Amino acid sequence: MTVEYCGERFAGWQVQPEARTVQGELQRALEEILRHPVRMVGASRTDAGVHARGQVASCETTSPLPPAKVRAGLNAVLPADVAVSAVEEAAPGFHARFDALGKHYRYRILCRAARSALGAGEEWHVPQELDVSAMREAARRLVGTHDFRAFVSRPDGDGDCTRTLHRVEVQAEPLPLPAGGLRLHVDVVGDGFLYKMVRTLVGTLVQVGKGRRPATDLTALLTQGDRRQAGPTAPAHGLCLERVAYAPGELPGIDTDTRRSDTRSARVG
Amino acid sequence: MTVEYCGERFAGWQVQPEARTVQGELQRALEEILRHPVRMVGASRTDAGVHARGQVASCETTSPLPPAKVRAGLNAVLPADVAVSAVEEAAPGFHARFDALGKHYRYRILCRAARSALGAGEEWHVPQELDVSAMREAARRLVGTHDFRAFVSRPDGDGDCTRTLHRVEVQAEPLPLPAGGLRLHVDVVGDGFLYKMVRTLVGTLVQVGKGRRPATDLTALLTQGDRRQAGPTAPAHGLCLERVAYAPGELPGIDTDTRRSDTRSARVG
Repeated sequence: MTVEYCGERFAGWQVQPEARTVQGELQRALEEILRHPVRMVGASRTDAGVHARGQVASCETTSPLPPAKVRAGLNAVLPADVAVSAVEEAAPGFHARFDALGKHYRYRILCRAARSALGAGEEWHVPQELDVSAMREAARRLVGTHDFRAFVSRPDGDGDCTRTLHRVEVQAEPLPLPAGGLRLHVDVVGDGFLYKMVRTLVGTLVQVGKGRRPATDLTALLTQGDRRQAGPTAPAHGLCLERVAYAPGELPGIDTDTRRSDTRSARVG
Repeated sequence: MTVEYCGERFAGWQVQPEARTVQGELQRALEEILRHPVRMVGASRTDAGVHARGQVASCETTSPLPPAKVRAGLNAVLPADVAVSAVEEAAPGFHARFDALGKHYRYRILCRAARSALGAGEEWHVPQELDVSAMREAARRLVGTHDFRAFVSRPDGDGDCTRTLHRVEVQAEPLPLPAGGLRLHVDVVGDGFLYKMVRTLVGTLVQVGKGRRPATDLTALLTQGDRRQAGPTAPAHGLCLERVAYAPGELPGIDTDTRRSDTRSARVG
């Protein structure tokens, strides 16, 4: 199933004792509809506050209910900040996390002096001017297969921080006068992501945009691998998991089956 | 000043006793900053639930505070659902409503089976398929100078329902699979608007999209002028006042000074 949620009032995707989580809400709603216990697997274990428009979750059921009925039933019982946009029957053994080829995250930034009143929960307000071409030059340096340990808040279980980013792009839309300013989208498509990796990449790109460090720093960070040298982690509420790809061509930059050989190891992202 | 607000928790723009209004919040905040009583005039007296990204409001002050300080002060004291994106000094006698040449409203529709969880407060969820080309054909019939009394919930003071619409356009953005569906924008630019006019136009266009009435009905409605024959009023939360133009060229379709000769009469819109 494809799941949309506003992360604001969730302690993230993954079930935790005594916390409101997306997985917890979904499992409870699904159990109400299917009338048996279920264990949902999410493609990405998004952090507290992070949104999703295209999270993918899978589970096993013996229920004969058709997918469209499951979708309608879920949307009727789920709280307003979670919705299921599509339910599909998957091939036997399908696993939303291990079978993902890649993911698209978008980070939204409002770049102008004044804060906003509409959509403020989905974007990071940066009141300084940003040098977008410097940010683009920095973003280009991230594309490819690199060791991203400099951008990871917590090393992965096996310590392997090598990931491939197919696309890191900064789009800028000018906002109407007299307020002016820019709305920025940082689009990141990759085969896998480490803990807080996208937010730390964005925090570092924004430092470049503010002129506090040169674009070439991104290459140095990838080479040196020292987390203390990277920028701060950008706030969770600017980040949204837009889409997960399971077949080549579903996301720009993912043209072939680039599934990592070690996908059966637990990975965050 | 240019004002942005989320209409959800407001009883509309205009001050009313015992109700939370945008004008009321703004006046209170401004009085705190300017330290004298103020009377704000809004370009449009938006209804309860209607949003704005580009409402324009004017007031008189003797304060020597520079505009940027007024803006920063307002955003610090205003609640999160109102923000002032720009403050400018205007020519003496400037009046936000009477001096407006035209306004751009956008009505947002989510057209797919499943509801959404992000941005649901800013769009009308229509779970049926809509025939976008029929809606476009109907929209074209509204452009021009017409008597819009068939689309008015409450006739204007002087009974004059003649307005000019420069642009009525239906844009459709396909949403990603597997959920699919469309996000529609109905953009309406005109010299003035009557009570609930945009929402009734949209409610009627959606009936055309559902195949419940032909596109030619719009022409018949303009000719006959019978409100009971028009469609239902679309919900307030899909509507947003995007921009108000005070000079030719500020909005597409407003190329010359089209200010109505009777702009000094009270008008809703």
